[in-house]
Amino acid sequence: MTSEAHYYEQFRENVAGRANVETTPELVAYYRELERFEAGALWTVANKIEPWEPASTSVPVLWRYRDLREHVLRSVALVTPEKAGRRVIYLNNPGRRDVSAAVGWLYSGLQVMNPGECASTHRHSASALRFIMEGQGAYTIVDGHKMTLGANDFVLTPNGTWHEHGVDAAGTPCIWQDGLDIPFVNAMEANFYEVHPELHQAVGYPVDDATATWSGTALLPHGHGWNKPYSPLFKYEWGPTYEALQRLCGATEGSPFDGVLMHYINPITGGPVMPTIGASMQMLRPGFHSRAHRHTGSTVYQVAKGQGHSVIGGQRFDWQERDIFCVPSWAWHEHANGSATDDACLFSFHDLPVMHALRLYREEALHDHGGHQPVAASR
Amino acid sequence: MTSEAHYYEQFRENVAGRANVETTPELVAYYRELERFEAGALWTVANKIEPWEPASTSVPVLWRYRDLREHVLRSVALVTPEKAGRRVIYLNNPGRRDVSAAVGWLYSGLQVMNPGECASTHRHSASALRFIMEGQGAYTIVDGHKMTLGANDFVLTPNGTWHEHGVDAAGTPCIWQDGLDIPFVNAMEANFYEVHPELHQAVGYPVDDATATWSGTALLPHGHGWNKPYSPLFKYEWGPTYEALQRLCGATEGSPFDGVLMHYINPITGGPVMPTIGASMQMLRPGFHSRAHRHTGSTVYQVAKGQGHSVIGGQRFDWQERDIFCVPSWAWHEHANGSATDDACLFSFHDLPVMHALRLYREEALHDHGGHQPVAASR
Amino acid sequence: MTSEAHYYEQFRENVAGRANVETTPELVAYYRELERFEAGALWTVANKIEPWEPASTSVPVLWRYRDLREHVLRSVALVTPEKAGRRVIYLNNPGRRDVSAAVGWLYSGLQVMNPGECASTHRHSASALRFIMEGQGAYTIVDGHKMTLGANDFVLTPNGTWHEHGVDAAGTPCIWQDGLDIPFVNAMEANFYEVHPELHQAVGYPVDDATATWSGTALLPHGHGWNKPYSPLFKYEWGPTYEALQRLCGATEGSPFDGVLMHYINPITGGPVMPTIGASMQMLRPGFHSRAHRHTGSTVYQVAKGQGHSVIGGQRFDWQERDIFCVPSWAWHEHANGSATDDACLFSFHDLPVMHALRLYREEALHDHGGHQPVAASR
Amino acid sequence: MTSEAHYYEQFRENVAGRANVETTPELVAYYRELERFEAGALWTVANKIEPWEPASTSVPVLWRYRDLREHVLRSVALVTPEKAGRRVIYLNNPGRRDVSAAVGWLYSGLQVMNPGECASTHRHSASALRFIMEGQGAYTIVDGHKMTLGANDFVLTPNGTWHEHGVDAAGTPCIWQDGLDIPFVNAMEANFYEVHPELHQAVGYPVDDATATWSGTALLPHGHGWNKPYSPLFKYEWGPTYEALQRLCGATEGSPFDGVLMHYINPITGGPVMPTIGASMQMLRPGFHSRAHRHTGSTVYQVAKGQGHSVIGGQRFDWQERDIFCVPSWAWHEHANGSATDDACLFSFHDLPVMHALRLYREEALHDHGGHQPVAASR
Repeated sequence: MTSEAHYYEQFRENVAGRANVETTPELVAYYRELERFEAGALWTVANKIEPWEPASTSVPVLWRYRDLREHVLRSVALVTPEKAGRRVIYLNNPGRRDVSAAVGWLYSGLQVMNPGECASTHRHSASALRFIMEGQGAYTIVDGHKMTLGANDFVLTPNGTWHEHGVDAAGTPCIWQDGLDIPFVNAMEANFYEVHPELHQAVGYPVDDATATWSGTALLPHGHGWNKPYSPLFKYEWGPTYEALQRLCGATEGSPFDGVLMHYINPITGGPVMPTIGASMQMLRPGFHSRAHRHTGSTVYQVAKGQGHSVIGGQRFDWQERDIFCVPSWAWHEHANGSATDDACLFSFHDLPVMHALRLYREEALHDHGGHQPVAASR
Repeated sequence: MTSEAHYYEQFRENVAGRANVETTPELVAYYRELERFEAGALWTVANKIEPWEPASTSVPVLWRYRDLREHVLRSVALVTPEKAGRRVIYLNNPGRRDVSAAVGWLYSGLQVMNPGECASTHRHSASALRFIMEGQGAYTIVDGHKMTLGANDFVLTPNGTWHEHGVDAAGTPCIWQDGLDIPFVNAMEANFYEVHPELHQAVGYPVDDATATWSGTALLPHGHGWNKPYSPLFKYEWGPTYEALQRLCGATEGSPFDGVLMHYINPITGGPVMPTIGASMQMLRPGFHSRAHRHTGSTVYQVAKGQGHSVIGGQRFDWQERDIFCVPSWAWHEHANGSATDDACLFSFHDLPVMHALRLYREEALHDHGGHQPVAASR
Repeated sequence: MTSEAHYYEQFRENVAGRANVETTPELVAYYRELERFEAGALWTVANKIEPWEPASTSVPVLWRYRDLREHVLRSVALVTPEKAGRRVIYLNNPGRRDVSAAVGWLYSGLQVMNPGECASTHRHSASALRFIMEGQGAYTIVDGHKMTLGANDFVLTPNGTWHEHGVDAAGTPCIWQDGLDIPFVNAMEANFYEVHPELHQAVGYPVDDATATWSGTALLPHGHGWNKPYSPLFKYEWGPTYEALQRLCGATEGSPFDGVLMHYINPITGGPVMPTIGASMQMLRPGFHSRAHRHTGSTVYQVAKGQGHSVIGGQRFDWQERDIFCVPSWAWHEHANGSATDDACLFSFHDLPVMHALRLYREEALHDHGGHQPVAASR
Repeated sequence: MTSEAHYYEQFRENVAGRANVETTPELVAYYRELERFEAGALWTVANKIEPWEPASTSVPVLWRYRDLREHVLRSVALVTPEKAGRRVIYLNNPGRRDVSAAVGWLYSGLQVMNPGECASTHRHSASALRFIMEGQGAYTIVDGHKMTLGANDFVLTPNGTWHEHGVDAAGTPCIWQDGLDIPFVNAMEANFYEVHPELHQAVGYPVDDATATWSGTALLPHGHGWNKPYSPLFKYEWGPTYEALQRLCGATEGSPFDGVLMHYINPITGGPVMPTIGASMQMLRPGFHSRAHRHTGSTVYQVAKGQGHSVIGGQRFDWQERDIFCVPSWAWHEHANGSATDDACLFSFHDLPVMHALRLYREEALHDHGGHQPVAASR
């Protein structure tokens, strides 16, 4: 058999309803003929392109902050923000190096900025958020709204908004995690990029006015004309988030798979913060060990508080505060708080809004082994 | 001319496009003939039923709490909750006595309850809210969710929910304002009423679980299955509301007609708390005197904090904390804070969700006299 | 007992959870005192304003076309359109004479126009439709769109649109039924009326362009900017409607209460044609006799085709083509086709969009007597 | 300079706000170090992953039916439906061979079936449609609803529906075009595939009941409980579509870029037929030559009627009835009817519903050269 024939043979499945065509010399000649017309025989690829269930090309990865932090800080000496555009170490999933993704179609990186530094203003079709990891004095300006930022706060810079990041001269070096859908928007062949004509934008509103305007408890300002497809509450603060989780702990058992999990929302619609990226925070009670489930959609986690471990695709990952890890689409995953006395909190961002909007979300609970995955190896 | 003819003549208008038919004996005979068939000639009523603009049958009224309070308290001695159903003094607009409304199609009353008392559980198609005016220990149970209530808190008991009100034995006599759309739902010929088969319902959740679950700042619990047409956050507390207004004051000038005005929302939709009744709270800065405007829809105000006056339909009403007043549909109105040092807050409920849903909302600013109404008389 | 006391006594109910307060002289004095403050005791009216279920003030009525037609035609000689505004005989429900309604909050009338006549252009907050009963050459212009109209076609003139009706000089005298929500919009105190400054509007589009643009089968024109709250397909033609009902007859049993019933929709939203008035057409197969049900909301029917009878609130009404009848809110009703060989079709308009939008819709099937009402009397 | 350094250098841009870091040995060492931790320096890839505007990896292709038809028919002799699963020749864009796509993330193929043949029933997360090109007797069954199909009809088999295709024994060999989002759903790592346990499904409704139920002109059946995210009108027939286009021609100039273009809709929502694939039909009037524009999103066209040419990305493609061609995302394109006397119609399917749902749609008109592209070469 020729290697050409071998190629076609590999995808055959002997199952009713699946392609199972024996490769003959006549067929190989036919296939070659089809290629001349930019065409092919479906049965040669059908089983490959219609898998029984998703098999992600991403692999689970844990990025330890103690590994990355020094390299992030080292970049300060190596490059300037002006030359680098943004001084970021990005997370490169071994299975997604071709698209520079942390998992699936999601990009993530750690950015560092010194007091007094400020990146130039730009905008792009990719949507973004940044989650503050350490430092004092960080701020972000989005379409003229300036937000001051502290640890575990996160801020949106949605599709099409002019935005810039900086650190006050009176601050300390700041590190934060960026989350974007650059790989996805590239894949959709819809990414545009623009540098602000004046490189920086003016602050046009009172500092933190978005918080003052939109963070009321079930209250919206009269006559707001907001009709953009993303949340006007650009900043989500850690303080009220942690309080909300604690309150919710008093009212619910939570999910067996996720503990006490809340989704950040657009207060005007109750929907996700941006059309393509959702963000969530969950609390694992002391001693809580979730059961395993899997679902479509990719997630990047950051440990906002505490320590513990997750089992992802049968592999155990031990995490501490500030570590980052990812769960690929349709991978089994479960989370455990490592402390018997303190809660642990996981921040996450994901493409679940896309999965829901396009009706591609599917979820499954693990029923075997008491709902827990056999663990292949610790990492 | 006969009195019959006189009747028809009164609606004539000598304007192109309006009915202007001279009443003749022949026509009167014709009209009589039509009556036999349950019919009439449109031109005899057209100008009456198609006014140039709305003329409300409600009149502006101020109900002073210092007048009503003693009468409300007196009812405690006069009737029991068991006999009265609910021990309520309702507000009876002189123009709406036929439908027992405070204004337009909105009902309002002041209810009093002694410690240890509890009304029986019922439900109805009318939607309701209660706003706490004084006392300790008030609570409401809605479909098994028990809410504890303090001054300036308000609670929803939406269309179709089992609900009961009570005061803890350890509390003090409590007075609150009820707001309902009973007249509207009656007018729509859609009101149903049911007494709970066991007269009281069980509390099925942790006390104040609705607050614990739904009052996060731009956060919603994962996997909530809420699909009812009203807010799951049954209770709206005064503390975070006042804080939100203060914060918003730092970010906006507010409306020239309403000062700093926020609407209570259903956190799942960003829409009104119930389909037929909306609720709002506004802050008038020290010294603020709004400009006048008018709009379709009826509103009942309660002074949550401070003192001042409103001019409604050219009439001045001076108000203090706990006073209640109403603004009829399409009546000019403006509000003034009477203090140069303290803010004033007005709670209100209204039928604006109906006006918006049915596309009947219209608004107009007063342009004459610097935006202020000439005042006919103080009252 | 005084007559005052008698008044209060009449609403007492000896049922737990209902008001049942004995009227004493002390209480009567108290009630008088409350009146001074524009207030009252709820328990004196609670049972009246919170009925166990809706009791409509409308009564079922059948308006026979053979009765009304001659009177409608006679109006041509009696008044001019210029003087009358519109030459209409309106249907006056005996229970709703105060608001000139045919049933509930719905107005209906029969309008006649001679060839060459044309009413002046106006607009109002009330929404309207007209259903063509007889004649050639009728047309309506809505915001510059001219629609030609034949028997059983109907046309929308929604809230706020400039509209005028006329009959081509080459046509014949035309009679149509008007349906409006004037009483409702008046009740909501939201009705505005305006005569076109030039009394007539220009036709700004090709004749019947709305049909050409919006009547595709599950097709919408690219890039339409339509964002009004009503259907852009102003005219709904009888031909495709009848065909659709016939086709649907081949695919469904239909409803036991309504036979094969379809609702006219806004093709852009799938929702009702206007926010406050819905329209429907139903086919009763030969020999079909529906079971009885009742629901909230008021309906006006016109017999578009065939003959038969309806039982409404226990009363039988025999109808023929062009007759009009009404079903009040929460009245039991059932329909029967009087022919064993031909189908019958009922056009209807109703306020169900309001009932649904405000969540006041409720429905109940009659279970007794095999689902049929005992008939009190023929009429 | 090492080849490693060369690699990094290639993406530098000397523009403010873009990455422009000189590659030094120290940096190369740093980059290597980062790789150990599954990380990288953003500035080495930033300009690559954040392009100024989309550059599609797809190329414009025209598939001539006269080329493909014989090869499609030849497959009948070469493989059975049982062995092949489906006997399809798929269109393989030279730039998208890795994902077997016709353009972008859209798959398309030509399927042939002989009378009496029937594929086995399956379902998958990919959404699909088929457009009938030739033959008599084709049918499709979707979740128990059987649809008969003629030339230029198309049928939906949405995400998750059981479906099977066949040709009646009394028919003729049939060829149709399949359109699916298999590549997209695979990319989203959300594709599931299932063969019906009994290989075939029962027909559970009258033949063509979906058409009978849902194809009324602006009419929907009462009480339909349809809440699926796709259109219940599975079949869209050519006859009423062509009539609608002709009617619309009488009411509009149409778009300068697309002529008279209509989108197939879900009649319940007015939205696209499926969440991930939209379908459209456009009429080019005799002699019409559109102006050029470009937009995000990928499109596959089939010539339903007539002949002409399109210029895509500066390349001219002459087409006849049944030819297929594609327009990649953000490629300039314009269409011309080749006849001065007959209209031409283009059917198309595309991922515009995705672009709109995720707010990634952007459009631009060509302003130079009178709105027409300079043509590089005919093909």
